[in-house]
Amino acid sequence: MTRGTHRQVVLASRPVGIPQSEHFRIEQRPIPRPKAGEVLVRNEWLSVEPAMRGWVNAAGNYSEPVGIGEVMRSFAAGRIVESDLAEWPLGTPVTGMFGWQEYAAVAPQAIHRKVEEDDLPLSTSLGIMGINGATAHYGLLEIGRPQPGETVVVSTAAGAVGSLVGQIAKLHGCRTIGIAGGETKRRMCVDTFGFDHALDYKSERFGDELQRACADGVDVYFDNTAGAISDAVMPLLAQGARVVICGTASIANWVPPPLGPRVERHLLVKRARMQGFVIFDHDDHLLRARRDIAGWLREGRIAYREDILEGIEHAPDAIAGLYRGENLGKRLIHLK
Amino acid sequence: MTRGTHRQVVLASRPVGIPQSEHFRIEQRPIPRPKAGEVLVRNEWLSVEPAMRGWVNAAGNYSEPVGIGEVMRSFAAGRIVESDLAEWPLGTPVTGMFGWQEYAAVAPQAIHRKVEEDDLPLSTSLGIMGINGATAHYGLLEIGRPQPGETVVVSTAAGAVGSLVGQIAKLHGCRTIGIAGGETKRRMCVDTFGFDHALDYKSERFGDELQRACADGVDVYFDNTAGAISDAVMPLLAQGARVVICGTASIANWVPPPLGPRVERHLLVKRARMQGFVIFDHDDHLLRARRDIAGWLREGRIAYREDILEGIEHAPDAIAGLYRGENLGKRLIHLK
Repeated sequence: MTRGTHRQVVLASRPVGIPQSEHFRIEQRPIPRPKAGEVLVRNEWLSVEPAMRGWVNAAGNYSEPVGIGEVMRSFAAGRIVESDLAEWPLGTPVTGMFGWQEYAAVAPQAIHRKVEEDDLPLSTSLGIMGINGATAHYGLLEIGRPQPGETVVVSTAAGAVGSLVGQIAKLHGCRTIGIAGGETKRRMCVDTFGFDHALDYKSERFGDELQRACADGVDVYFDNTAGAISDAVMPLLAQGARVVICGTASIANWVPPPLGPRVERHLLVKRARMQGFVIFDHDDHLLRARRDIAGWLREGRIAYREDILEGIEHAPDAIAGLYRGENLGKRLIHLK
Repeated sequence: MTRGTHRQVVLASRPVGIPQSEHFRIEQRPIPRPKAGEVLVRNEWLSVEPAMRGWVNAAGNYSEPVGIGEVMRSFAAGRIVESDLAEWPLGTPVTGMFGWQEYAAVAPQAIHRKVEEDDLPLSTSLGIMGINGATAHYGLLEIGRPQPGETVVVSTAAGAVGSLVGQIAKLHGCRTIGIAGGETKRRMCVDTFGFDHALDYKSERFGDELQRACADGVDVYFDNTAGAISDAVMPLLAQGARVVICGTASIANWVPPPLGPRVERHLLVKRARMQGFVIFDHDDHLLRARRDIAGWLREGRIAYREDILEGIEHAPDAIAGLYRGENLGKRLIHLK
């Protein structure tokens, strides 16, 4: 029996800063044959995340970079289509680091989990029920530690992580202020994600509006961007503020290190804390995050949006597009 | 009976940045007469601290600025010389915010404490047994949370706070690296304060030496300076590092905000925490700090140094001198 071929997106050259479509190449290869003890997964959804920029940059990151010529590292969700293992029957929906490709032969240890929530779309396992959801949940609740009545500011507030941060903060009794780029995303923050206020950082009035919205100070700043947005928020911190460093989307390149206003005086005078985290350190938190988020979804208390690209041929430009801000919601690649 | 006069150091004009001698004026005034319920303290020691810069600057600080024409705010230690209060007999050694003046008439609520440790010099109540000691103790142990075997880096390591931070870290089983300005202070870090390594930040080889000394990463950075020293330390943070923001001695002026390399990526990739504190928030910690430090002093396990200026006429230039780095040890003004 011939197995046919499938498509893979491989890293063609190493980008400095944000990977563009020319840094990837699509290759047609034989569908892999699982070795003994492995299963074959047909990917249905591939994830696109801001963090993937770091996975292909040369150094200074939290994981080893993807090698040149290797399949692009990626979360994916699919179903098992070949298996000799009783615990992993055909049709089982699974997620894992299956890469930007149509099929993956993997050992069960490489499977992150069997997707149990069959009432929710499989695509959510890569977004709100996946690493984005866990990132928002852990970062806000464990590092931000919001208290009822506090003011929580979120950057990339219409994005997969930011939109959930705002909604969880709201469920915890906080006043929420979302920052997003452009009027469409700004409105989405208020209309879809229930932020109390939303601001367009591209507006000329952004600085004044932020100051007015945060007249009593910012208790928690969930920072997905760094850059000019953070520079506007930091002087507004309240006493005892917590700054959650989740991403640095606005900084295209860290070599040489970009300059910004020093933060030390704000941290000192406001007795504030600024703390980074990487969700991959917190596997023990994933189940709790998933349980909470699935509950809120089923009760209709939180919303999510997806930005779906049809076909693997869109993968090479998909990360650059995120950084251009063109997506509305969690960006996914759908494989037919 | 004529009461005679005493000298006060008053704020003559508002400095931008570091206060210089011309911002102060010495005035001869009648020695105050305590009102009912007040006592008269004769100051024997006046304190000089880097933080006093912030007490006279216009805004953006953690306390109201000293008014023009007012006595300069200051910690002082002295003895009660007039009192009708049975609980505060003549001769009682006390500390408090008695200001840069020879005498102060104060209500008992303004007295921070009766100095109980009569085996230790009264001057220590303003330094290692006072706010400097508590700052080192709280900042290192409560915010830095050093673990045995970890590497602790301290800036202004020969100073009143830094020298104690290094010694407490050493008592907790850490490897200690002190950063100071000039060969004299560098040697003092090793010879007097027992740092495992000490580096002169003015040396051309500083960056290389720091990298070599911190080959396994910096677990705790106790930051008294901000500026170029911090910029050299931040890229060397270990996973899970804690940066204790205690002071910003190297920054002469925060308006307009000085620029520096952005820290967000370091905090994210290293899962690090950067946190400011002000010891005045932590009165509940003072007794514990004093008990620990007095114990270590009596057992001969820690050392301290004082830099004593004889006479109140040295006060106006004393803060500027701190920032010029001319003191060796805790700077005090002794009143005969």
